[in-house]
Amino acid sequence: MTDKNRLDTDRVIRAPHGKTLSAKSWLTEAPLRMLMNNLDPDVAEHPQGLVVYGGIGRAARNWECYDKIVETLKRLNDDETLLVQSGKPVGVFKTHSDAPRVLIANSNLVPHWANWEHFNELDKKGLMMYGQMTAGSWIYIGSQGIVQGTYETFVEAGRQHFDGNTKGKWILTGGLGGMGGAQPLAATMAGYCMIAVECDETRIDFRIRTGYVDKKATSVDEAIAQLNEALDKGEAISIGLLGNAADVFPELHKRGIKPDLVTDQTSAHDPVNGYLPIGWTVEEWRKEAQANPERVSKEAKKSMAVQVQAMLDFYHDGIPTVDYGNNIRQMALEEGISNAFDFPGFVPAYIRPLFCRGVGPFRWAALSGDPEDIYKTDQKVKEIIADDPHLHNWLDMARERIQFQGLPARICWVGLGLRHKLGLAFNEMVRNGELKAPVVIGRDHLDSGSVASPNRETEGMMDGSDAVSDWPLLNAMLNVAGGATWVSLHHGGGVGMGFSQHSGIVICCDGSEEADKRIERVLFNDPATGVMRHADAGYDIAINCAKEQGLDLPMLNDKNS
Amino acid sequence: MTDKNRLDTDRVIRAPHGKTLSAKSWLTEAPLRMLMNNLDPDVAEHPQGLVVYGGIGRAARNWECYDKIVETLKRLNDDETLLVQSGKPVGVFKTHSDAPRVLIANSNLVPHWANWEHFNELDKKGLMMYGQMTAGSWIYIGSQGIVQGTYETFVEAGRQHFDGNTKGKWILTGGLGGMGGAQPLAATMAGYCMIAVECDETRIDFRIRTGYVDKKATSVDEAIAQLNEALDKGEAISIGLLGNAADVFPELHKRGIKPDLVTDQTSAHDPVNGYLPIGWTVEEWRKEAQANPERVSKEAKKSMAVQVQAMLDFYHDGIPTVDYGNNIRQMALEEGISNAFDFPGFVPAYIRPLFCRGVGPFRWAALSGDPEDIYKTDQKVKEIIADDPHLHNWLDMARERIQFQGLPARICWVGLGLRHKLGLAFNEMVRNGELKAPVVIGRDHLDSGSVASPNRETEGMMDGSDAVSDWPLLNAMLNVAGGATWVSLHHGGGVGMGFSQHSGIVICCDGSEEADKRIERVLFNDPATGVMRHADAGYDIAINCAKEQGLDLPMLNDKNS
Ligand SMILES: NC(=O)c1ccc[n+]([C@@H]2O[C@H](COP(=O)([O-])OP(=O)(O)OC[C@H]3O[C@@H](n4cnc5c(N)ncnc54)[C@H](O)[C@@H]3O)[C@@H](O)[C@H]2O)c1
Ligand SMILES: NC(=O)c1ccc[n+]([C@@H]2O[C@H](COP(=O)([O-])OP(=O)(O)OC[C@H]3O[C@@H](n4cnc5c(N)ncnc54)[C@H](O)[C@@H]3O)[C@@H](O)[C@H]2O)c1
Repeated sequence: MTDKNRLDTDRVIRAPHGKTLSAKSWLTEAPLRMLMNNLDPDVAEHPQGLVVYGGIGRAARNWECYDKIVETLKRLNDDETLLVQSGKPVGVFKTHSDAPRVLIANSNLVPHWANWEHFNELDKKGLMMYGQMTAGSWIYIGSQGIVQGTYETFVEAGRQHFDGNTKGKWILTGGLGGMGGAQPLAATMAGYCMIAVECDETRIDFRIRTGYVDKKATSVDEAIAQLNEALDKGEAISIGLLGNAADVFPELHKRGIKPDLVTDQTSAHDPVNGYLPIGWTVEEWRKEAQANPERVSKEAKKSMAVQVQAMLDFYHDGIPTVDYGNNIRQMALEEGISNAFDFPGFVPAYIRPLFCRGVGPFRWAALSGDPEDIYKTDQKVKEIIADDPHLHNWLDMARERIQFQGLPARICWVGLGLRHKLGLAFNEMVRNGELKAPVVIGRDHLDSGSVASPNRETEGMMDGSDAVSDWPLLNAMLNVAGGATWVSLHHGGGVGMGFSQHSGIVICCDGSEEADKRIERVLFNDPATGVMRHADAGYDIAINCAKEQGLDLPMLNDKNS
Repeated sequence: MTDKNRLDTDRVIRAPHGKTLSAKSWLTEAPLRMLMNNLDPDVAEHPQGLVVYGGIGRAARNWECYDKIVETLKRLNDDETLLVQSGKPVGVFKTHSDAPRVLIANSNLVPHWANWEHFNELDKKGLMMYGQMTAGSWIYIGSQGIVQGTYETFVEAGRQHFDGNTKGKWILTGGLGGMGGAQPLAATMAGYCMIAVECDETRIDFRIRTGYVDKKATSVDEAIAQLNEALDKGEAISIGLLGNAADVFPELHKRGIKPDLVTDQTSAHDPVNGYLPIGWTVEEWRKEAQANPERVSKEAKKSMAVQVQAMLDFYHDGIPTVDYGNNIRQMALEEGISNAFDFPGFVPAYIRPLFCRGVGPFRWAALSGDPEDIYKTDQKVKEIIADDPHLHNWLDMARERIQFQGLPARICWVGLGLRHKLGLAFNEMVRNGELKAPVVIGRDHLDSGSVASPNRETEGMMDGSDAVSDWPLLNAMLNVAGGATWVSLHHGGGVGMGFSQHSGIVICCDGSEEADKRIERVLFNDPATGVMRHADAGYDIAINCAKEQGLDLPMLNDKNS
């Protein structure tokens, strides 16, 4: 593998727009455009190196493979299926018109060898590629997902703790970095106020400039005054408070100030570069992180313990408190806070109840390239799901505040029973010409029935089945059987080599009646496997959802009826 | 999980015979009968505990799950698919008539947790089951496979070294145990003579009684005399020579006696219980293995080094020599024989060239239960593959010397281009009433395109891709797309947790024209993925086979034409 093969600085890829096909049908045009869209410079992090997002998550193994995938998709017939192995097009086989047009397996390794060392060796030899989740499976659509995932988390928290009424509630958090910066926008979209403690003023200013944060405060008093004013007026605003979370969290608690929800997205997972120790300036910290990493790590972890102690204090006062996937509980535990894990992670707390109903990051993209197509589908979603104000709110806010990247696309979390209805409606809109061209419907691999990942999506499953990966494999096979347009099986996305297995699907609404049938099956079955998986683990929400939706779960049917 | 749930001493399961359906169609009757057949007391090792073979390889998770699978298959419609998760029937979903009726995932664990400890924990909790290869995927058919696998190995050796003419050639080996005892029968079936050195006289006598060994010798001189007599007469006979392989192998070399092929199936992988040290009696050995295991291990390994040295001497004299998967090279290496790995393992040496042409353990079973149905298919195979004397020989010998267990079945290794022809012919025979009922066609998971197992099937791949498991996952998904009747994805079969991933298929020939189409696709594509996988790794045989069979391998097409 020469570098030239992986890095081509002359390439600028953009998916074709409009109705003209460069492949033989929309079912092959769709993966072609979505592959290209993943590498659009407005979408991908490092498109010339084929990197879409998430470190080294790629869309194709190298440029030779990319060109060959494109060439093969253009000639692929409607009874053929292309196999892609870690980003390389390895075979074309006769199947049939209701079978997927592309089957993808990325980064899968026999478990004993499933680590970064062995992966890197194979990657260097040109035998592998890191597929992440939606990079190698051609359904990444930019940063809408981060805002939206956080929004859903906050909405679900609102449902659980405030009966869905978030007005007058506020969230305390830390960190306004790459991911964490989405928190204030997601919070206000979900109707909350927020105080986000951030030690680096440039980060606050950047978030204000891009409309993600509303106000800046440089002292606790100032922040509280701004907050109270907004609460009095019934407004939902976000405040970036300059300070150290390890100072501010305990101070607020001491003063008897009571947030309605507490969390944190400092980069606590990386104690050398991710967390400012108490009493340090940001400049000192950056310098010492280079010069004296061990000292920084020691000091940072001590400070984290202080912050976690304050989080525990809030929690034991009865305030909902969660770890937002930055491992801060573990760090505090190592510093002697033996009850650090008293408060839960965000997946068991807020995402799992959604997964139990098959709710997850459903998304679609307009192959026409025309934003109007998405606006029309937004409208259709509102019609079909008329009774979900949070969803309507998300759609309005997203339209207003989030720019499209590449092909116009939309994410919204919907569950079992609704996904296939939306799919059928979109297909009808393609058929009757309301939309200018077909749309594709897909989802993240982080979804209800599609992932086994004991440190994240399947952390702390009720029955202890966190590591059982039969489920995503069944999900993938069932989606192949149902006739998704492409299906993928990946290893190591999100949490890295060795730690997850997951599957992806995309289905094309080409307006045909055959597509109706496939859409109805696939977009029902796919979230249904998630409800099944959680019902099997013993979650009541899932068992009830299965009953309501009439799922046929042989070992539970008797208990259900 | 109570024991009662897993052990039911009142159960005796046998698959129904004949034409009367207990399910709604042959496509659901087929998995029903094959599940039951896997637990037939004539087939399974420990049927009352649901164990089929290979330690704890099960057909269903427990008896409650077994009953529910049966019940569900009986009511399953022809547009529905049953999902089985580690032996438990977890869901029924709408698919379509060309989709599989059953999808199975057994024993799959996220890699970081993919070890026996975690598996055992889940197994104990009732959350998992060990599927082995054909146990949990309902296509085990008894011990024909052991004889046949060994036969194919010897035939391939004959092809490579003697242009297929094995007459007058003889094999030297050690060990006449559970597996190794198949060697003499397989050797004579393949046209060779054999001297098999075995230290335990009762084992030789047992093999003679059951027709697996022809003669016994108690000294090297006697064995050589018997051998020479047979060679003179042009006969293929096998001789069980009572002795220690670590004595006999060097002595033969010293005397200048030259076998045509050298291998060994003593249980060298287990130095305490598996290998008799030089100078010991079997009784001493058995006693000391209990009383003083470390001493036995030390002495046994020293003796193994002596045997391997003799094998190396034969090898360097130009005599083909292989390790038969008992790890004897590794043991010798640890004893200081630094060039122990000079001679290859049997997969890279003899099985891989077969895999390169998609040749593997193709098998079928008669759902009628009538042996005549198999004899008729035997005849059909001979007609269609008229020019393969080894195959004809196998079929004749198998009929004569191997008893059916459970539903009558046949194994024979055939490759890409022939499997689907046989499938179509069998389906035609069902259609026109030549056979009394449908047949199912399947294979072992140990096959050309269906397994990643770096210590066995994919040991020493040319390009170093031994551990890449994208391939079996693609194989499974493609077979789902093609419309196999059931498809399975397993982890840990053969070599244990952490060390393999593999997939299985079975397709039912119900005589219909729709089945023709599915059979043609699936039984072509399945071995074709094996040819693809080996062509991708750079094997010339596979690249040539792909060319001959007109495979469409995008990255190789240009090079091919
Ligand atoms: N599990 C998940 O799905 C998930 C999702 C999103 C984020 N996360 C985690 O959230 C964390 C944040 O991610 P990111 O991409 O925003 O990281 P980042 O490094 O870009 O941002 C971290 C921010 O925290 C600030 N900070 C550090 N120490 C501080 C302190 N003591 N007080 C106040 N501010 C402080 C930094 O200045 C920085 O702006 C990471 O640990 C990430 O893994 C997890
Ligand atoms: N990789 C594969 O696919 C594969 C296939 C078949 C067998 N094997 C290996 O072959 C070996 C044999 O398997 P098995 O089931 O027959 O085992 P087994 O233990 O039943 O038989 C081993 C036999 O070797 C005899 N023996 C031991 N030491 C001897 C000595 N020094 N000289 C002569 N005879 C000796 C024993 O008396 C016994 O009969 C195992 O290591 C097994 O793993 C591997």
